[in-house]
Amino acid sequence: MSENGALPLRGKVLTVDTMNPNVKKVDYAVRGPIVQRAVQIEKELKEGVKKPFEEVIKANIGDAHAMGQRPITFFRQVMALCTYPQLLDDNKFPEDAKNRARRILQSCGGNSIGAYTSSQGIDCVRHDVANYIQRRDGGIPSDPDNIYLTTGASDGIVTILKLLTAGEGRTRTGVMISIPQYPLYSASLAELGAVQINYYLNEEKCWSLDISELQRSLQAAREHCNPRVLCIINPGNPTGQVQSRQCIEDVIRFAAKENLFLMADEVYQDNVYAEGCEFHSFKKVLFEMGPEYSSKLELASFHSTSKCYMGECGFRGGYLEVINMDPEVKAQLTKLVSVRLCPPVPGQALMDLVVNSPQPGEPSYQTFIKERTAVLSALAEKAKLTEEILNTVPGISCNPVQGAMYSFPRITLPERAINEAKAKGQAPDMFYCMKLLEETGICLVPGSGFGQREGTYHFRMTILPPTDKLKIMLNKLKEFHQKFTQQYS
Amino acid sequence: MSENGALPLRGKVLTVDTMNPNVKKVDYAVRGPIVQRAVQIEKELKEGVKKPFEEVIKANIGDAHAMGQRPITFFRQVMALCTYPQLLDDNKFPEDAKNRARRILQSCGGNSIGAYTSSQGIDCVRHDVANYIQRRDGGIPSDPDNIYLTTGASDGIVTILKLLTAGEGRTRTGVMISIPQYPLYSASLAELGAVQINYYLNEEKCWSLDISELQRSLQAAREHCNPRVLCIINPGNPTGQVQSRQCIEDVIRFAAKENLFLMADEVYQDNVYAEGCEFHSFKKVLFEMGPEYSSKLELASFHSTSKCYMGECGFRGGYLEVINMDPEVKAQLTKLVSVRLCPPVPGQALMDLVVNSPQPGEPSYQTFIKERTAVLSALAEKAKLTEEILNTVPGISCNPVQGAMYSFPRITLPERAINEAKAKGQAPDMFYCMKLLEETGICLVPGSGFGQREGTYHFRMTILPPTDKLKIMLNKLKEFHQKFTQQYS
Repeated sequence: MSENGALPLRGKVLTVDTMNPNVKKVDYAVRGPIVQRAVQIEKELKEGVKKPFEEVIKANIGDAHAMGQRPITFFRQVMALCTYPQLLDDNKFPEDAKNRARRILQSCGGNSIGAYTSSQGIDCVRHDVANYIQRRDGGIPSDPDNIYLTTGASDGIVTILKLLTAGEGRTRTGVMISIPQYPLYSASLAELGAVQINYYLNEEKCWSLDISELQRSLQAAREHCNPRVLCIINPGNPTGQVQSRQCIEDVIRFAAKENLFLMADEVYQDNVYAEGCEFHSFKKVLFEMGPEYSSKLELASFHSTSKCYMGECGFRGGYLEVINMDPEVKAQLTKLVSVRLCPPVPGQALMDLVVNSPQPGEPSYQTFIKERTAVLSALAEKAKLTEEILNTVPGISCNPVQGAMYSFPRITLPERAINEAKAKGQAPDMFYCMKLLEETGICLVPGSGFGQREGTYHFRMTILPPTDKLKIMLNKLKEFHQKFTQQYS
Repeated sequence: MSENGALPLRGKVLTVDTMNPNVKKVDYAVRGPIVQRAVQIEKELKEGVKKPFEEVIKANIGDAHAMGQRPITFFRQVMALCTYPQLLDDNKFPEDAKNRARRILQSCGGNSIGAYTSSQGIDCVRHDVANYIQRRDGGIPSDPDNIYLTTGASDGIVTILKLLTAGEGRTRTGVMISIPQYPLYSASLAELGAVQINYYLNEEKCWSLDISELQRSLQAAREHCNPRVLCIINPGNPTGQVQSRQCIEDVIRFAAKENLFLMADEVYQDNVYAEGCEFHSFKKVLFEMGPEYSSKLELASFHSTSKCYMGECGFRGGYLEVINMDPEVKAQLTKLVSVRLCPPVPGQALMDLVVNSPQPGEPSYQTFIKERTAVLSALAEKAKLTEEILNTVPGISCNPVQGAMYSFPRITLPERAINEAKAKGQAPDMFYCMKLLEETGICLVPGSGFGQREGTYHFRMTILPPTDKLKIMLNKLKEFHQKFTQQYS
């Protein structure tokens, strides 16, 4: 204190100059400046500010319910029963929903979803997850002890990356991620201070993955870090491709040969639309390749309640499965997740329903199948529609949306627009998307937020809006693109 | 590949030797080896293995519902309505519950708690939190822009510590934490690679905080790191003390003088039992000390749905409020939390109900007050009971449980027991607690998991079991302690 009792005049303890430098490097385009502007515009519209559009359409994020998709009735019935068990006496709820709720509640402390669970997740849910994986993978066994429930898939992915990050300088862990990528990966690597290693997907071949490109990227990275991890997103985000069985085999062979830990982000496993495409889990292919691979390759795969036909993003449910993880490391993983006590229990319960859905003969079966089919066939239709309409626009070219929930079309931008963007210090596709937002209310994410080959420009757009709205949106987009091209030519 | 096509024989990519070294240093006693053994014993009991007890009593963790506490009816009604909005047509639910649910749903994308929310949390919930804080603190304003909803308080605490961690070697961020501490702090600091700075609470003065001890600890730490943060838990965990207004003022003065960022863990703010004790928020005291302090000191405070009278741990709801945070850092914080998309929405909704509970005149008010009062007065009674019974045991001495949910009594261990433990490589109080578990089924956490002065031994015990069970447990504990003392004397 100074003589008059006043505090000595000091600056802030925490400033951008003194904060965690890794956090500063984090970037997350899916909720970046364009979304912040979209939220602002929504407020302005509410306050009566005149715009050339009536509403903001947020096609920036895979948020199904926000786009009007209805929750699956059975899931919400069970969740309501778990939340307020007095409803178990209510004859409005079907018996199978009540049975599921009773089973979940019996495995909760004090029969309440308000109790902590084991840090790895509720026992019976992990058993149900293991059974689901086993059914999905044609009988290849899954061990509940290898299942960890998570707070959405994001949490699981960050946790595994965290375990894998070590070393300094040239020995620092390098992690191979596809470009374009889902920016959770780049953001987490920045935060952890791990080295991001880019490998490029082949846009000309429908965003497929070439082993030669993996090889090139790995070779280059070995000059400056210790590449230990290969991340794959299948079906692809933001690129919507579905990997062939052959490709998955090649990737596994590559990872085994190069001694890489494989992370398979498979949250879109039910979102496959294109004819001839099928989802193959990395685990299934690994085991079908025989013990030479299945007894060695270290694999972590991730799933979530947020995507597929459920779209229950808000519940933050998810799981990860580890294969061939060193038992001592697994003990460390269990310890690490215990610090956060447990994943949200409503999300755990919802994950259980996803892997243990109504069966033929149960009262809710018909409705469940009807609802699920309706969502998935609407998505398939919208995937086709999006590709078709976008490809009618000169200067936009769009690969088939084989799966997931996004289209990632390439856009040709006039030289003058590119220069104007650069003069403003903006990425050219950010400049484009920002103009699109201001003029039409359509909110997309610029390709630069996901990564793309130098000199190419893209945007990511979800196919989630209801079909009518999607058509209107695509036509507005078409009109905008033509106007924009004219204006800057 | 080798010539015969076999994979080259390599070791694992990820081993304890090649994993993240910071994760290896993490320790979390509340779910440590003793709890793992307790879970194992529960399984053995189920399988019919004979034990000298019928059930395991888990007094290791503040998990109210697991100990039989019933959820607050109103909270669960609103949550069920939010989960399954068809129930809004059901006349079994009171109008105020329906109104709360409608308001929350209206602020969710697509009116569904399955949609993502803004990363900072639902707007109207943050407003309700700010209003709650303002009411609690006698009108001192709270800005919803300074509120971030979190995945339990743990998530908020780790996030702020993450922002604050920077520097290398002697410039590395040091964080002052009380000893005994809640091990989330030591675990997070280990994971982040920040420097843990211990200051000891004064057991002789009911675990109070002496400024001279803060000063000593800070001085010593300045020799080897850059102390920037002071963490306080009030009411205290594991020690159950409630800080006086004077003490809080002194702490604030100290933090201001020494240029420390203050973190106030106030999750037990409704858990105050002892006569003459009262909860004072750090924010309120800060603002009452005048602009000289309130315009400068950087403060983050934390709250949760898991403790107090709610005990809704499973929902992982929480919030943090930042005061005087540099606006650029706040933007970085907002960016950082956006990577995880949003906190679980059921937890956000529940947090809203906690800060916006039934008001006089509303249909649910009477029941709500009755239920809340019942929980809090039972806790007050159990706090007293625990202190009284434990203090009748020669060799156990227990400070009053003024608040929170724990007693942290000191135990005198015979020299022979200490030596036997050391020979086994165990902390003496771990040895004690393990024996207690095996012989009585009571699961406590040894004091060594929280930190304690060299040569002293303690355990943490929750006061949450129902009164009858608590009495039985305390008497079993008494008996065990006498036997143990005899055996090793």
